[in-house]
Amino acid sequence: MAGSTYGTIFKITTWGESHGKGIGVVVDGCPAGLSLSENDIQEFLNRRKPGQNKYTTKRNENDTVEILSGVFEGKTTGTPISLLVRNEDQHSKDYSNISSCYRPGHADYTFDAKYGFRDYRGGGRSSGRETIGRVAGGAIALKLLKEFGITVLAYTKSIGPYEIPSSEYHFSEINENILYMPNITYANKASSFLNACMSNCDSAGGIIECQVKNLPAGIGEPVFYKLDACLAQAMFSIGAVKGMEVGDGFSVTSTLGSENNDEFYIENGMTCKKTNHAGGILGGISDGNDLIFRTAFKPTPSIAQPQNTVTSTGENTTLSISGRHDPIIVPRAVVVVEAMTALTLIDLLLLNMSSRLENIIRFYEK
Amino acid sequence: MAGSTYGTIFKITTWGESHGKGIGVVVDGCPAGLSLSENDIQEFLNRRKPGQNKYTTKRNENDTVEILSGVFEGKTTGTPISLLVRNEDQHSKDYSNISSCYRPGHADYTFDAKYGFRDYRGGGRSSGRETIGRVAGGAIALKLLKEFGITVLAYTKSIGPYEIPSSEYHFSEINENILYMPNITYANKASSFLNACMSNCDSAGGIIECQVKNLPAGIGEPVFYKLDACLAQAMFSIGAVKGMEVGDGFSVTSTLGSENNDEFYIENGMTCKKTNHAGGILGGISDGNDLIFRTAFKPTPSIAQPQNTVTSTGENTTLSISGRHDPIIVPRAVVVVEAMTALTLIDLLLLNMSSRLENIIRFYEK
Amino acid sequence: MAGSTYGTIFKITTWGESHGKGIGVVVDGCPAGLSLSENDIQEFLNRRKPGQNKYTTKRNENDTVEILSGVFEGKTTGTPISLLVRNEDQHSKDYSNISSCYRPGHADYTFDAKYGFRDYRGGGRSSGRETIGRVAGGAIALKLLKEFGITVLAYTKSIGPYEIPSSEYHFSEINENILYMPNITYANKASSFLNACMSNCDSAGGIIECQVKNLPAGIGEPVFYKLDACLAQAMFSIGAVKGMEVGDGFSVTSTLGSENNDEFYIENGMTCKKTNHAGGILGGISDGNDLIFRTAFKPTPSIAQPQNTVTSTGENTTLSISGRHDPIIVPRAVVVVEAMTALTLIDLLLLNMSSRLENIIRFYEK
Amino acid sequence: MAGSTYGTIFKITTWGESHGKGIGVVVDGCPAGLSLSENDIQEFLNRRKPGQNKYTTKRNENDTVEILSGVFEGKTTGTPISLLVRNEDQHSKDYSNISSCYRPGHADYTFDAKYGFRDYRGGGRSSGRETIGRVAGGAIALKLLKEFGITVLAYTKSIGPYEIPSSEYHFSEINENILYMPNITYANKASSFLNACMSNCDSAGGIIECQVKNLPAGIGEPVFYKLDACLAQAMFSIGAVKGMEVGDGFSVTSTLGSENNDEFYIENGMTCKKTNHAGGILGGISDGNDLIFRTAFKPTPSIAQPQNTVTSTGENTTLSISGRHDPIIVPRAVVVVEAMTALTLIDLLLLNMSSRLENIIRFYEK
Repeated sequence: MAGSTYGTIFKITTWGESHGKGIGVVVDGCPAGLSLSENDIQEFLNRRKPGQNKYTTKRNENDTVEILSGVFEGKTTGTPISLLVRNEDQHSKDYSNISSCYRPGHADYTFDAKYGFRDYRGGGRSSGRETIGRVAGGAIALKLLKEFGITVLAYTKSIGPYEIPSSEYHFSEINENILYMPNITYANKASSFLNACMSNCDSAGGIIECQVKNLPAGIGEPVFYKLDACLAQAMFSIGAVKGMEVGDGFSVTSTLGSENNDEFYIENGMTCKKTNHAGGILGGISDGNDLIFRTAFKPTPSIAQPQNTVTSTGENTTLSISGRHDPIIVPRAVVVVEAMTALTLIDLLLLNMSSRLENIIRFYEK
Repeated sequence: MAGSTYGTIFKITTWGESHGKGIGVVVDGCPAGLSLSENDIQEFLNRRKPGQNKYTTKRNENDTVEILSGVFEGKTTGTPISLLVRNEDQHSKDYSNISSCYRPGHADYTFDAKYGFRDYRGGGRSSGRETIGRVAGGAIALKLLKEFGITVLAYTKSIGPYEIPSSEYHFSEINENILYMPNITYANKASSFLNACMSNCDSAGGIIECQVKNLPAGIGEPVFYKLDACLAQAMFSIGAVKGMEVGDGFSVTSTLGSENNDEFYIENGMTCKKTNHAGGILGGISDGNDLIFRTAFKPTPSIAQPQNTVTSTGENTTLSISGRHDPIIVPRAVVVVEAMTALTLIDLLLLNMSSRLENIIRFYEK
Repeated sequence: MAGSTYGTIFKITTWGESHGKGIGVVVDGCPAGLSLSENDIQEFLNRRKPGQNKYTTKRNENDTVEILSGVFEGKTTGTPISLLVRNEDQHSKDYSNISSCYRPGHADYTFDAKYGFRDYRGGGRSSGRETIGRVAGGAIALKLLKEFGITVLAYTKSIGPYEIPSSEYHFSEINENILYMPNITYANKASSFLNACMSNCDSAGGIIECQVKNLPAGIGEPVFYKLDACLAQAMFSIGAVKGMEVGDGFSVTSTLGSENNDEFYIENGMTCKKTNHAGGILGGISDGNDLIFRTAFKPTPSIAQPQNTVTSTGENTTLSISGRHDPIIVPRAVVVVEAMTALTLIDLLLLNMSSRLENIIRFYEK
Repeated sequence: MAGSTYGTIFKITTWGESHGKGIGVVVDGCPAGLSLSENDIQEFLNRRKPGQNKYTTKRNENDTVEILSGVFEGKTTGTPISLLVRNEDQHSKDYSNISSCYRPGHADYTFDAKYGFRDYRGGGRSSGRETIGRVAGGAIALKLLKEFGITVLAYTKSIGPYEIPSSEYHFSEINENILYMPNITYANKASSFLNACMSNCDSAGGIIECQVKNLPAGIGEPVFYKLDACLAQAMFSIGAVKGMEVGDGFSVTSTLGSENNDEFYIENGMTCKKTNHAGGILGGISDGNDLIFRTAFKPTPSIAQPQNTVTSTGENTTLSISGRHDPIIVPRAVVVVEAMTALTLIDLLLLNMSSRLENIIRFYEK
């Protein structure tokens, strides 16, 4: 099926492989009238591009984006916005040794099982480079959200065993360390841990947390397009994600109802909650509080250690993956989490405009 | 938006409120030729219906299903299958005290925020009774999966602090305890815990695990309709779910790549994996191993203890919820997890038929 | 596939067969706050129900609708509205002679070709009774459009050779003749023609024209969901439709550009058109003028004359169709055209709310 | 909304404006294993490209296509295929005089009404150049259909008053005249007529007919995605289309049921029809006969004669359109009709694979 299109009103279609001619996205359904330049998008692509530091692949890509359509005289026109990033530094020959065998933890085997063969160069479509399209599209969604005063902030909550308790967050420090952790001390410990991983030709995983502020109450479409359901699809669509939880998440299973319920109270005439165990979502609809959720990423499956595996012709073999790989994907995935969150939210915000007749009548009276 | 339709080829549309005339589902896209009777569906509805034991609401509903269309001479015709369950035992007056105030942990406030008002009787559309449509539709999906030899088994892994380690599963015991736990000893401990909760007018949560066997490799549609992404949407669309994880889930964040990768080997000419940390999914596509995932449910928000809350007119108040409520929803949600899993899988199985040209040519040559 | 769901935001899912237990529709995505009672819907169902006069089937159905969900205290809640009409007067035995052979002009053969077998009673899902769900859902759409001052009016423009020129329309006469023609004189001629058809055991076709007033400019979503493209899908989805044209339609092919272009001029500060050859649509978007389009219906395929045909087991045979059939379906299809038009328009009106950023910002500031 | 995506399983997303950087399409859901090169696509683009003869715009575009993704080692991989055509010969200054006024018969006014402003250069998104994406995507669909032996043939049936009767078709002559008419004599008359139009600074319209051979019976998804309903959406989505009819089309409204029904008979064990008034579709499903339908195109709205119109600031004015325009768009639209037909058919062929349980079981047993 056509699995590369996401969204109902604000819709992205991503395309491209790691070692093809390029990567891109078509953003359709973006409202007309948004100021948009390539810089607006480049800023986000730069956060995920490779070669930024010792924990990211040495692949040398500028990931320069070109707007091909949908913008006229600096503003979106309401027509599809096509964005193109050319691949530049493809070392396809690095992958000749994996053309005929399946890397453990990768999608090589499953792509062959599904499609009969695959573009084996750098993982093809299942490469992390696929997220360029998401980030480029997400940059537009984030710019739109900003127009409504909604902010999306993701950061690395844990790497390997180093998890920052919420009480020790210092958000100003997120951009002061290459791991995007909101606590420099933890970031330093995590760095040492990652250095050790690299020395051992091994890799690590971690948790990304995301907070959304100023989202109005009422967003989400029960019963199958609940806010959390849509976010969960969005998060699990990112490679390497193995878990997702909202608010108190898995820990709610060992609390009591009397502890987990967030009591309401009135402040300045507004309905508020004393606590936010729910993470800002009740019944699949935003409740006006901060949205909080976490996503678990597995360790990068590409490791230089020799691993047992099989060839596509059915023989046992051993594989040592060379090529250029991140020992951890979490830091570069932070912006991907923000992008997928924004894409989900903007679509649900637009869908919500139809929820009440009185609002629609007022809209068309204007 | 129309949020009550789920699926692309095999599509369900659910409808109905807790205290309306009934609950139902239209299943569209079911292939022609499946034997189907009301008994096939009733069997699953009986597993979720209320009044089964002391942990389920005392509401007295038979939840008898009627097939209104789409079946002729005992077989599905390929046209929409409409299923209807009439509500019988509505004590709407029980809810008069909540008509004007918001129950903590419920969707009362968010429905008002979205739609301007709500059907306050028993939660209306956000009631657990909404899942009747899912289970009825899921029963058909499960029957279809059976035709391919695919089985879906969900069970209660934990209730409150009582979590059964995988090594202590006894699957034959699942149906021997009212909590659907695969270990009677744990079930007994959990029962005592629930009894204490009830005495304290409190409630508990837990984890449901689901395993799927015999799913062929190749199922899932990258990049946005990956198998895990679709299952995550399905699970988070169930009320009270706060987390979902696949395979080793959140614990992968503290393992190393060398530990987490599942090595391949050849056995009897087949590609197999030595371990299944991935839970049967690689790159968003099934790998032929058992699918394993877990879903976290919060404690039932309806508790009889007095709670602070607010009225819909903006005043602080205190609420004690009477009515008939489950102290835990996990056991009744087990069949809902199976249903949503089956609905997701059958749709992806049908979508996957288009993945290879050679298969399509063979199909139309028949 | 699931072909019985129509629409993106305002979405209907119809179900039911001619001789099953009933017919119905789930309307999902209806905004909250619309006053709605069964009478609002019944009024439209009564216009299409059988047994109204000598040109409609003698089948005796009250087609009484029941609202099963989605309405609370007289208003829509924003949740799915399920509508049910029970079949009452099924003479299934009338169809025993067609169980094993294919009626010319009917879908008997193609349903068998697609699904392997069919519900042969009265055409099953391909029966005209299927349109009950459309009309019931369309009644809600029409009520919504009324809130915006938009009116939809369909009528019979021609029956057999009797076509009313636009210059001779008397709209007040539409409801004064059982053929819904806007000219009594033509209606009388058409009646005589139909009487002759019936005497000869034959049937006739005709054209339904539809006009929409007060539709704002800007409705329609290029390039694939243009207003005319959506209306065309809607019209051709009605059984027996073989043609559809907008504005001057097919006749534009023999005019010149200088004749066919509608010149603009300013009146009272508004952009107006001197003519409306375009039928109210430019570039797939409404231009603020009246929408005008026509739909061609073929003669009822069920005729009592003996016809050559084949059995489902591959033998030549002759068939005389008894049963209860309309000699013309056009008059009863008038309300179906209105319903499908309204369903299409309301969905596009809701989708259009996202077209401009400034409007969305204003919406969320409210 | 996102209106630039078409299809369910085989899905295209088009983008691009007449005078932007380029035009393109993403084809998602194309089965893996199809041989595909740029030449396969170029061949179709060449049929619609400008500058071919005196009846087409003098704009000088090579319309050279580049495959950016989705093809590896000469075969489709099952992942999105991104196709790019750069615009080369944009004379944007030609359009400075229409930047502030609305061309009659064009979408200038309605785009402004919808989006608040527009890319006025050459019509922007509503330009005929938008069809490049459709033709490029359609080329892939046509190549797929060929694998099943299905052929799609469109041709010009009429230009202005010159309409070729079916009895005088000589299909071998279609490619022997620049108007793609299946009769050289009529083509010559039509040419003279067009020459006169050009002398008078005027334009003409016409009818394109399309025939599909070897489509199996069973294609189409009742009730809203019937074969004819999908084709009608596809045809009306093409700019300038004002009518569409299937089989005998509008003329059925003045025939009798006894004349219009196609009788069945058995030949070589196959169910055949003596006539094909229905145009190959019964009940919205293909019946195994040739598919035949016609589409009516209006005269090119861009004419060099002075026309009355208005400015975007609400003043009456007069406009003479210079620029480079076709006096008729029909010949260049022939390949667009083929493309949209193929895109519709391949999607419905893939959707139809799920219609019968027995076929699905056989599929997964392979």
